[in-house]
Amino acid sequence: MSQATLNVDLDAVVANWKFLKNLHNGKQTSAVVKADSYGLGAIQVTKALIKAGCERFFVATLSEALDLRAKLPTIKIYVFQGALKDEEAEYIHHHIHPVINTIQALKTWLKIQHENPTALEAAIHIDSGMNRLGLNFSDLNEPNLQAIKSLRADLLMTHYASASDLDSPQNAAQFDLMQQAEQMLPHLTTCYANSAAHFLPAKYHGDVTRPGCALYGINPLDNAADMMQNVATLTAPILQLRTLDKHETVGYGATETLPAGSKILTAGIGYADGIHRTASHRLYGFIGDYKLPQIGRVTMDMTCYDASNVPEKILQQATYIEILNHQQTVNDLARIYKTIGYEVLTSISQRVKRKYTK
Amino acid sequence: MSQATLNVDLDAVVANWKFLKNLHNGKQTSAVVKADSYGLGAIQVTKALIKAGCERFFVATLSEALDLRAKLPTIKIYVFQGALKDEEAEYIHHHIHPVINTIQALKTWLKIQHENPTALEAAIHIDSGMNRLGLNFSDLNEPNLQAIKSLRADLLMTHYASASDLDSPQNAAQFDLMQQAEQMLPHLTTCYANSAAHFLPAKYHGDVTRPGCALYGINPLDNAADMMQNVATLTAPILQLRTLDKHETVGYGATETLPAGSKILTAGIGYADGIHRTASHRLYGFIGDYKLPQIGRVTMDMTCYDASNVPEKILQQATYIEILNHQQTVNDLARIYKTIGYEVLTSISQRVKRKYTK
Repeated sequence: MSQATLNVDLDAVVANWKFLKNLHNGKQTSAVVKADSYGLGAIQVTKALIKAGCERFFVATLSEALDLRAKLPTIKIYVFQGALKDEEAEYIHHHIHPVINTIQALKTWLKIQHENPTALEAAIHIDSGMNRLGLNFSDLNEPNLQAIKSLRADLLMTHYASASDLDSPQNAAQFDLMQQAEQMLPHLTTCYANSAAHFLPAKYHGDVTRPGCALYGINPLDNAADMMQNVATLTAPILQLRTLDKHETVGYGATETLPAGSKILTAGIGYADGIHRTASHRLYGFIGDYKLPQIGRVTMDMTCYDASNVPEKILQQATYIEILNHQQTVNDLARIYKTIGYEVLTSISQRVKRKYTK
Repeated sequence: MSQATLNVDLDAVVANWKFLKNLHNGKQTSAVVKADSYGLGAIQVTKALIKAGCERFFVATLSEALDLRAKLPTIKIYVFQGALKDEEAEYIHHHIHPVINTIQALKTWLKIQHENPTALEAAIHIDSGMNRLGLNFSDLNEPNLQAIKSLRADLLMTHYASASDLDSPQNAAQFDLMQQAEQMLPHLTTCYANSAAHFLPAKYHGDVTRPGCALYGINPLDNAADMMQNVATLTAPILQLRTLDKHETVGYGATETLPAGSKILTAGIGYADGIHRTASHRLYGFIGDYKLPQIGRVTMDMTCYDASNVPEKILQQATYIEILNHQQTVNDLARIYKTIGYEVLTSISQRVKRKYTK
């Protein structure tokens, strides 16, 4: 079938993981594969990283953990959200590690571990500055500390709020708070660095790092050249070529006018596939090295491109165009969409076929 | 499991369909269920509309047609894209109607019908002003007209480019062109009106209408009060409640500061679920009639809300908040996202559980 396709280069994912592991001096590096590995396919990415030596995997929700567990019966899976009300039995049954974010969750999991010897170790998450999810630093007092110490736990986690800006004073402030937490909980393995924090001095990383975005080719830093390999290539089938008889408008609301003789290419990809509608008129499509300006509004299932600069012979032979590739990367699309690379990838919908290359 | 959930009211879909059918004087009205019924679930929506008397269903791609066919073996399915290269055998085998958009596709389907008596009727799509997909009006000359006449075909289609603006002169211009096409092809059943065009004078509709967006609660008109019933309610589990000890920042990049005593609610829904990141700071969450301003940036899996105005007792009992409902409709979210309701719905990702009520 001719359909919009996301080609995922698993070798590039592994290369990005190894690059970050080197920044962590070759020490333990895990992987964040939540949101279906940012839309690229959690099962395939996880399998590739297992082969590369990755041992711990983080997802956002229980539902994501169960999808992964169904295909990978033995890997270590942590759930950032932790066990919500009535979810605990699934964590026990499927051998999933909850992240403890609240005192209530701490008490519940302590009781569960007491009653179920097979309930797994929890990770303790301290919110050191996001004010989003996790224990408050001020929660680390008696009797809570005693409860944490009696819990079977392995990781002590936090999440940097501003690591993409390496110069932000918030990085040091959060790290200082975690050093105090470490003194109170010296038995835990620390796990601090997201992708961006790999570029901070090594002491900020913790023992185990947990990159996400950079694995998938997203530049994790605000003001630095991109060092990651491109992972994703998004293609769309060419549905129609049209040469305008006369000066005419294109698309909904007749927002764009093109001169007679213009060649319009209609491609089978639109905002229901995850091409943001805000990108209308600012996007490009590529046929080989030819760069085609997108024209008219991005519609639900189609986008049009001005193919006037492409030689007729090349145009007649082409069957697809590329929207996301090494010429228009996830970071470029982020600027065009006025968002971040993460959302560019997670927007790519399930209507788009996934294809894996090594 | 506690997870972000999209509740779809199938009775409201049917009520919206009947409302539009009435605008078409009770005559034949089909339904557009492409892009998984704009994210709401094509199988469930189609089943509900079959019961209401709907007979024809339109999707965008072959892949969507096959998904529908697998569950609904006998309904009439049309594919807007038409049969692309090498897809023809699937159309024949699964009894799917292609829409003919190019002279090449016309010739191919004519040959296929000649060789395969079971190949279904095609629909002829004239591009009367979108310049996106379909035959040019200028294509309607000999020998093409002869080819169309020898084709087994049922529908003559076009798509209005500016129908959401009832006063646009483009509506009449497109209709005039189609009247000329009808004179050349009087044997075909006409099928012109999308949702918005139901509000144009009846002659603009064609014999059969094909609404999409309005079925799903989207206001199809630019400058008119909304007349459609709300179909979708989107809920997110509450992950954590936090009271700030002191004046503090919230979220990535520390973009927002709240006074001591502020209550922050963290909900398990983010841009990987389809809440656009551009909506940061401009969205609301609802607990009953309490309206909670969203604070900090929308992140991949979570959003935070200022719950300071909600009485403690109600807050402690709440397990979820609503993001999309009758108080903050798809049309409201479209304004907040700076897009159209269509994209609000198609953005809701497959991580969000679908639940159907009648």
